[in-house]
Amino acid sequence: MKAICLNCTLKPSPAPSNTQALADVVLAALCEQGVESDVVRLVDHRIAPGVVSEAVADGDEWPTIRERVLAAEILIMATPTWLGQPSSIAKRALERMDAMLSETRADDETPIAYNRVAGVVVTGNEDGAHHVISEVTGALIDIGYTIPGQAWTYWNKGPGPGDEEWLTTDEREWSITTGQTAAQNLVAAAKALWASPLPPPAAQ
Amino acid sequence: MKAICLNCTLKPSPAPSNTQALADVVLAALCEQGVESDVVRLVDHRIAPGVVSEAVADGDEWPTIRERVLAAEILIMATPTWLGQPSSIAKRALERMDAMLSETRADDETPIAYNRVAGVVVTGNEDGAHHVISEVTGALIDIGYTIPGQAWTYWNKGPGPGDEEWLTTDEREWSITTGQTAAQNLVAAAKALWASPLPPPAAQ
Amino acid sequence: MKAICLNCTLKPSPAPSNTQALADVVLAALCEQGVESDVVRLVDHRIAPGVVSEAVADGDEWPTIRERVLAAEILIMATPTWLGQPSSIAKRALERMDAMLSETRADDETPIAYNRVAGVVVTGNEDGAHHVISEVTGALIDIGYTIPGQAWTYWNKGPGPGDEEWLTTDEREWSITTGQTAAQNLVAAAKALWASPLPPPAAQ
Amino acid sequence: MKAICLNCTLKPSPAPSNTQALADVVLAALCEQGVESDVVRLVDHRIAPGVVSEAVADGDEWPTIRERVLAAEILIMATPTWLGQPSSIAKRALERMDAMLSETRADDETPIAYNRVAGVVVTGNEDGAHHVISEVTGALIDIGYTIPGQAWTYWNKGPGPGDEEWLTTDEREWSITTGQTAAQNLVAAAKALWASPLPPPAAQ
Repeated sequence: MKAICLNCTLKPSPAPSNTQALADVVLAALCEQGVESDVVRLVDHRIAPGVVSEAVADGDEWPTIRERVLAAEILIMATPTWLGQPSSIAKRALERMDAMLSETRADDETPIAYNRVAGVVVTGNEDGAHHVISEVTGALIDIGYTIPGQAWTYWNKGPGPGDEEWLTTDEREWSITTGQTAAQNLVAAAKALWASPLPPPAAQ
Repeated sequence: MKAICLNCTLKPSPAPSNTQALADVVLAALCEQGVESDVVRLVDHRIAPGVVSEAVADGDEWPTIRERVLAAEILIMATPTWLGQPSSIAKRALERMDAMLSETRADDETPIAYNRVAGVVVTGNEDGAHHVISEVTGALIDIGYTIPGQAWTYWNKGPGPGDEEWLTTDEREWSITTGQTAAQNLVAAAKALWASPLPPPAAQ
Repeated sequence: MKAICLNCTLKPSPAPSNTQALADVVLAALCEQGVESDVVRLVDHRIAPGVVSEAVADGDEWPTIRERVLAAEILIMATPTWLGQPSSIAKRALERMDAMLSETRADDETPIAYNRVAGVVVTGNEDGAHHVISEVTGALIDIGYTIPGQAWTYWNKGPGPGDEEWLTTDEREWSITTGQTAAQNLVAAAKALWASPLPPPAAQ
Repeated sequence: MKAICLNCTLKPSPAPSNTQALADVVLAALCEQGVESDVVRLVDHRIAPGVVSEAVADGDEWPTIRERVLAAEILIMATPTWLGQPSSIAKRALERMDAMLSETRADDETPIAYNRVAGVVVTGNEDGAHHVISEVTGALIDIGYTIPGQAWTYWNKGPGPGDEEWLTTDEREWSITTGQTAAQNLVAAAKALWASPLPPPAAQ
């Protein structure tokens, strides 16, 4: 079983990413269960705006990233919080994944996102995680991903803007165990759907 | 396998409910797969404001409704759209279900919502369904429910407020087949999790 | 100039309300600017589900509360956060206010919410304030209220559920000064619109 | 008085933009009231990911666009709807505007967004406009913009995905008059705040 983590931080490599640091907690827990992970820091790649799977501009790297997404049964969307919302990088990826709505598997005509599961990792210096999770999971459910119960974790500091970050906080425990639970639930649900998959949609 | 539909219309019986009418499409499709459904029109019952499972006021009927919710592996939240958002009745039920966050099964210590699945049915005279779905599923994932891919359907009329309703429209086809797909996905995911359940959460 | 605060806590009187306690910061700042405040703790009143201004059930107190809302140029919606969302009590009030969409002043045919301003106060033991603010202001803008810049304040504790509350925290400073700014902006915008009001809507 | 319209379509010029076409209704109504409009189709420009006002990459055009935003008292955010949410282009612009939170005018120390007003134009082939409006206005209120009552318009087709667009629909009337009302309210509120502005924030 394979997982892919789309890190939607705004900061290009090699700047440290708080979002990646919390995602790594989930990926480590996946690894303990035998799940191999691929990680893409999306901001390091050129992803053109659009809602199709094919390249829409010179140098558009989405088609290659999409292949990596489709190689994984488990998707982790990891995003910072800005103005209480998912990053523009997360939105860009979801827009490109919108094309999956009408893409089906050759063998059984199920949408290609069916029988895949997704979870969310959110960091921020300010409040917004629950909403970020609802936005990301709402979009993914629409595309066809299944979201297992409690398949997310988050961290942010208390009220108001500020400088404190996941990488420098002392209060990590809840976010870590919550992330470990998310990993367990993602693996269990992915295995359950592999053994007993969703059928093709009702005929339109 | 059992389903429960919480109809969150604002209109008490016996007024016709557009929301129930679209929910019935999903319930009929569940029935074809052998799933027996219970339906509660919440507005006909007294549900006191609160975030606990026990009665919080004289005549509070939540404890009885909660038993009916827990008797079902599949939950259908069916709600109208007001100001682009779920109804206050839907919010009331979700608040009471918030208590499930800390309630576990006696046998294996999993949260009581684990290994249950949920879907959403939305009607409205105006735009808002995608957001209503994100709000409802976001809350249910937090509690522990699993949301299968494309486990929802909706109907509303075009732009602007107006009188047209699901029960009087001629353009029902997309909402019906989408609802049938939702039913299929709910049953398949519920069976998958029954055969291969989520484990207890990581130790805090 | 008058203000009304709709306290949307789930807890009936005389239980202490964290939401009221933070709202009182805003109301005190309004008072310093000569604005008299009325406060309604909505859960203490019977407000039937519905989307009209008239009473929809025996003992429905909405018509009286609506009169108090209309007596004020400034509205403060004060709500706790449950599952990252506004309370069901807040939703109930907004649904009843939905009727204002089609209600106009006798003298100039402007919608009755025009030239009124609104702000938001949010408390919670967990993350969600920015989203709660967006939900409440989104609904009020639809009805016709104007939302001045930064006309809100909030408080919640750090990540994860827990017992800490506004009334027991030591870290109040940011929420207090932010609430004082909200009060200033509400008064300034209300005065500005009083002197130079919005015109009647374009003819449909 | 000046307005700026940020068109957040995903389609680069010279492709026709439905979003621009509906925004033009609002801009025409602004023009009738003597407001001059500037329009930026953001996708035609390179805007690097980030949350500061300065250029963050070679060729980053945000600093120039920001100057155009600051030259206008009225901001129109015009965005398509994808997966029920604002476009990634809209999110990108809002993230860069996040920097305005801590930027103040030299003369009176008010945040630079104070006493500016904003409205929203939304198109989509599917449901989502109310939520898009709440997301965009929620972010702008946080930054300091004032949102006048009913300062938005939208159009989308009925339930389900599809090809119909604003530019090809016959049912434009409600969206047009609603857009004209939005223009009136933006001008009236901008004039009101110019005559009677918000004061500097309370001291932290």
